[in-house]
Amino acid sequence: MRVADAGDAVMGRLVAEYGPEGALGQVRRGHLDTSFVEELSRGRGRAPDLARMLSGWRARLLVADPVADLTEGHDLGARLIMPGDLEWPTQLDDLGPERPFGLWLHGDADLRFSCLRSVAVVGSRAATPYGTHVAAEFGAALSEAGWTVISGGAHGIDAAAHRGALTGEARTIAVLACGADIAYPAANQDLFAAIRARGVVVSESPMGVRPTRLRFLVRNRLIAALSRGTVVVEAAVRSGALNTAGHAVALRRHLAAVPGPVTSENSAGCHRLIRRAEAVCVTSAREVVELVGAVGDDLAPEPRGPVLPRDALDEDTRKVLEAVPARGGTGPATIALDAGLDLMTTLACLGALAAAGYVERAPRGWRIRRPTPIP
Amino acid sequence: MRVADAGDAVMGRLVAEYGPEGALGQVRRGHLDTSFVEELSRGRGRAPDLARMLSGWRARLLVADPVADLTEGHDLGARLIMPGDLEWPTQLDDLGPERPFGLWLHGDADLRFSCLRSVAVVGSRAATPYGTHVAAEFGAALSEAGWTVISGGAHGIDAAAHRGALTGEARTIAVLACGADIAYPAANQDLFAAIRARGVVVSESPMGVRPTRLRFLVRNRLIAALSRGTVVVEAAVRSGALNTAGHAVALRRHLAAVPGPVTSENSAGCHRLIRRAEAVCVTSAREVVELVGAVGDDLAPEPRGPVLPRDALDEDTRKVLEAVPARGGTGPATIALDAGLDLMTTLACLGALAAAGYVERAPRGWRIRRPTPIP
Repeated sequence: MRVADAGDAVMGRLVAEYGPEGALGQVRRGHLDTSFVEELSRGRGRAPDLARMLSGWRARLLVADPVADLTEGHDLGARLIMPGDLEWPTQLDDLGPERPFGLWLHGDADLRFSCLRSVAVVGSRAATPYGTHVAAEFGAALSEAGWTVISGGAHGIDAAAHRGALTGEARTIAVLACGADIAYPAANQDLFAAIRARGVVVSESPMGVRPTRLRFLVRNRLIAALSRGTVVVEAAVRSGALNTAGHAVALRRHLAAVPGPVTSENSAGCHRLIRRAEAVCVTSAREVVELVGAVGDDLAPEPRGPVLPRDALDEDTRKVLEAVPARGGTGPATIALDAGLDLMTTLACLGALAAAGYVERAPRGWRIRRPTPIP
Repeated sequence: MRVADAGDAVMGRLVAEYGPEGALGQVRRGHLDTSFVEELSRGRGRAPDLARMLSGWRARLLVADPVADLTEGHDLGARLIMPGDLEWPTQLDDLGPERPFGLWLHGDADLRFSCLRSVAVVGSRAATPYGTHVAAEFGAALSEAGWTVISGGAHGIDAAAHRGALTGEARTIAVLACGADIAYPAANQDLFAAIRARGVVVSESPMGVRPTRLRFLVRNRLIAALSRGTVVVEAAVRSGALNTAGHAVALRRHLAAVPGPVTSENSAGCHRLIRRAEAVCVTSAREVVELVGAVGDDLAPEPRGPVLPRDALDEDTRKVLEAVPARGGTGPATIALDAGLDLMTTLACLGALAAAGYVERAPRGWRIRRPTPIP
């Protein structure tokens, strides 16, 4: 895991072809099997500079000390899982050659089990109070509904989603771009401790590895791949969260985005995803569950306004009610004219309306009984 | 226009069949042609209670005084247009039997011409500051772009859209549910005066007719039918604006909705329209123009974030940049290892990065040159 960059697809295919040992053997001896090279160059347009890659791998191999990495990791209480292990989340196979070579886990939760019903909640580091509020609300509601919240443990939306999830029943998972022992950002140290106790911290880098811009980007593919779907709560048009969203789409995972004020740059990325129909517009955790949940169950209720009693009235009665003035008072004949009904019908309706408390008899005729909402 | 309710489809078909005179003739004599009645009952499942309708029409006809209506309207400076008149907006024909029998206009603008490039901007009366801000912004931007803003002259979103439009070049049109001479709500009296001077106030009711809930609903069909498209800025899940939106869909006009905070009930109606794909999500007036404008021209620009200079770097140089520590300093060999590149390439990249001001030589090796945004 020290030899190639995380997400190095060439090494990924090499390992897939010859297994870790065979791959390392070729790196050690300094050249790759001709058959592999040929197949590789056949695959893609511009063949990668294998010679340079190889020299890079070799240089790292010389200083790599896997035993020390393992010891350090275990001393810190972390565990390493590899493809084929019981705890390995097989949905990561969707990443193909970019599937991680292994994952360092730090925390009590079982990764594979925790991811069975999981949603990624991601967004801007520089989030607005609105964004962090929504992220926390979604995190809490998803957790209470038994859904594991996966995020990146960063400032802003990520942290808010984790903290929200910690208030609920379910697990929460932080996928880091640095070694699982490094608290980045440092301000989230307590958060990471809480996640280790209630969930699990995940990284494909060994202990001590620093986060880099590149590692943040390749980390995002794991967040998208581990979860059933990704929700972008807040994202500027140029945001790492949109990178995660891209991975979710590429991996055919569900993608949802939360709308916000059109005056907020931090929602512009979400609105673009919705406008391009790349993401489903979601306004509540229930709508998220409806999206990622099993088809059929987990259906969100239609939002409904209060049903006004007016709606119970039949057409004639409503017409009469409309014809009754709010102030002063009007005689039944005038009301009948205004309503376009005959006098008998009108009188019958007025009686019903009076009984129902809509209208009252005033000195100068019928009028609306206060208080009444003006339409 | 006094005889039948606005939007009375039966009277509409009667007039379409026999013309106004012929229709009134049948109402006067007290029974409708058998052929018409048969055709009507053939048309729909539940035949309307024609006898009752007829008696309602007759009762009103007895008190109707069209000459007085005309005189009163003209004295107030308004004009009456009928289908076939030069100023009649032919798009109203899309309303079929619910097409208005005539329209009272009060204002300097030519209705037909003003509606050629027009957008309806509607929303809640009980709007939030966010909603009125967006409505005013959209109204102003649409007007500056030469688009006529049509709305209902109500409190909240309507008024804000009108006021915004008045700051621009284009006309603005208020379609009222009451007589064009009545300022409802009274607080908008000055607004209506400004619209008469810069645009036109429209109503299908004669002078002096009071607004009723029913008239608000039938009025909405005119707002939808007159414009090329309707934009809902803010709407609760139960709002008159959604009634206008429904007319727009039924009339195959464009429908757009503005997203807002998911925590705001006044945006819930907009979000539902977007989630159901009944409305296009729009975040700016330019996106509205792109939607309703002629295909091809009027394309809104993609929102773009600032392009970071980092993006100009080639892959190797970026890898090296990532490998350079932010504090302290590291030697080229270590950087080369971390970047997975050979030493010569690494040194070349470091030189380029130093020249570009990304990195600097420190006592203990190379480090990032401050200030630098942490990814």
